Amino acid sequence: MKQLLAAAATAFALYSAAHAQVAKPPLSPGQIVDAAKAEEWTAIAASDLLVMDLARDAAGSVRRVVIQLMPAPFSQGWIGNIRKLAAARWWDGTSVYRVQDNYVAQWGDADGDEPAKAKPLPEGLAAVPESEYATTAELIAEAVSTDGSADIIAMVAELAGERDRLGEIAIGATRTTVAPQGWHERDPYAPWVEIHEGWPLAGGPEDEAGSPMWPVHCYAMVGVARDMSPNTGSGAELYAVIGHAPRHLDRNIALVGRVISGIEHLSSLPRGSAPLGVYNDPAQRVPIISVRLASDLAEADRPHFEYLSSESESFARYAAARADRRDPFFISPAGGVDICNLPVPIRPVAAK
Amino acid sequence: MKQLLAAAATAFALYSAAHAQVAKPPLSPGQIVDAAKAEEWTAIAASDLLVMDLARDAAGSVRRVVIQLMPAPFSQGWIGNIRKLAAARWWDGTSVYRVQDNYVAQWGDADGDEPAKAKPLPEGLAAVPESEYATTAELIAEAVSTDGSADIIAMVAELAGERDRLGEIAIGATRTTVAPQGWHERDPYAPWVEIHEGWPLAGGPEDEAGSPMWPVHCYAMVGVARDMSPNTGSGAELYAVIGHAPRHLDRNIALVGRVISGIEHLSSLPRGSAPLGVYNDPAQRVPIISVRLASDLAEADRPHFEYLSSESESFARYAAARADRRDPFFISPAGGVDICNLPVPIRPVAAK
Repeated sequence: MKQLLAAAATAFALYSAAHAQVAKPPLSPGQIVDAAKAEEWTAIAASDLLVMDLARDAAGSVRRVVIQLMPAPFSQGWIGNIRKLAAARWWDGTSVYRVQDNYVAQWGDADGDEPAKAKPLPEGLAAVPESEYATTAELIAEAVSTDGSADIIAMVAELAGERDRLGEIAIGATRTTVAPQGWHERDPYAPWVEIHEGWPLAGGPEDEAGSPMWPVHCYAMVGVARDMSPNTGSGAELYAVIGHAPRHLDRNIALVGRVISGIEHLSSLPRGSAPLGVYNDPAQRVPIISVRLASDLAEADRPHFEYLSSESESFARYAAARADRRDPFFISPAGGVDICNLPVPIRPVAAK
Repeated sequence: MKQLLAAAATAFALYSAAHAQVAKPPLSPGQIVDAAKAEEWTAIAASDLLVMDLARDAAGSVRRVVIQLMPAPFSQGWIGNIRKLAAARWWDGTSVYRVQDNYVAQWGDADGDEPAKAKPLPEGLAAVPESEYATTAELIAEAVSTDGSADIIAMVAELAGERDRLGEIAIGATRTTVAPQGWHERDPYAPWVEIHEGWPLAGGPEDEAGSPMWPVHCYAMVGVARDMSPNTGSGAELYAVIGHAPRHLDRNIALVGRVISGIEHLSSLPRGSAPLGVYNDPAQRVPIISVRLASDLAEADRPHFEYLSSESESFARYAAARADRRDPFFISPAGGVDICNLPVPIRPVAAK
């Protein structure tokens, strides 16, 4: 009997020690990102960065907006056009001409709708079909294995499994609020969503073409303005999301990238008073000085960024913590997160 | 046999006529709202409108922000404090001192954190417990039947039924993309969501206190800034959501209303460069000239608004159309919508 009690006392002591460790405040999502290992970060190629310099603001401050373009197999027809437009310096002298509250800021040729005044586009731009609004899981797998940029393809089920495993570690047995399904299966717009190779994607059931997947309209994503279907836009007129994710635009407009630095230079612009937030007075337009690929800038002027690999353990921990906030400010963790409230951490780095 | 063929031909003719009607382009959500009947709109009482006048902008334009306060049984402790603060003219001479991109704009006493400099609060403000972050479906039903402001309590199941019925009318048999569950059951943060008496709410399973329901952090919602738990804030420091819905704050901070006019005067302010978007330089703060209940303003200066009743047929049609865009611009309707992408239509009206 004494032995049993001693064993119980030992077990209790071990439990208490474990409990004391668990009782340290859980890390916030930001603290998890700060603690990520160097090798969990992935450099973004300079040839995938589009650098837009706006005219200085009223106080004389520089306004630089940096956009990361999407990798293959996403939207490559439009992205090829965008590379041509930047090489032709086509955007230099155009403007941000539309800012609609809780929706988008749009730039390009403010007179593009008037044939007599429109700025001519460079030769050789592709007319991209609507079928390119989505791709397939099969093509994504092929693109990744072809260029060797990653050795893990985190498909939905795997990410879900990873999240649950890490969720247990991070969250322990005290969880009180549990979403009936995982966050990736509680999306109102698509059967499932995931962050894949750093990009927010949605997916639907298999059809004759494969397993469809498409990028989603989260905050700061950049899309290609277009006229009525079957027009899909050239890529000359672009917009960035500056409000609550307009997910109804998914698969209706091409997404080509996202603003990774300087979104505030678009989101804090005055809203336009004409329909759709267009500026009434041409004097309200914000001049674009230049748009270049970072790889075409002088090294001293070239920005460098890296993102936290969405296939890393730290990202999975970050996602679990975003879905279930237990850092000290929070008293009721949601037990879920929507894909657009799970932004991929991106940070500037010094040139190597 | 001939008769059967004739009957079939008649049936086909009727089908074609019906089909021809269906082939008219479906109305956009905005067109449905524009076509709503006068009696489907509900006036907002002047005593539920908080009018905040900021200093004029650099061009000399007026900047008025109008906030609709939530009705009982939501957050009434803090809202009582807010009424007292407005009556005491406490906010006059304070400022908007924090603007964080894709998150919130916050106002009140910029020196509130420094006891030596903080502006004294009026006597008699309530200290509200955390339990008030949520209410119950039972208390909501009681509040509505007590004040007689509505004769329909649209609980989740009813709204879902209504939406499905109207969905069939609006959408017809050609629907190709269908969310596996209704939009109100595909929320990543809560078991279900609904728009009730004009407000976005989430709900969870019944517990000993009843069926919990709480307001959600959609764009333009106004909340009460607070220190660490168990502090819940007084209502003196307020914020408005100016980015993608930060739903992880639901049930962690009190929501007291929403900006229904002039959100652009907050969302387009320059972002602050200190941590959390606080303005570094006091000169960047935006002065608040006055905050008053509309009922305390002179009639000539008093704004009037009404909202499209969320219990009306037009609202159900609007919700169905937002979830399944079939107006001409759209080629791939989502078949779903998230609650924060279903803003309640609100419009200014002339004084009566």
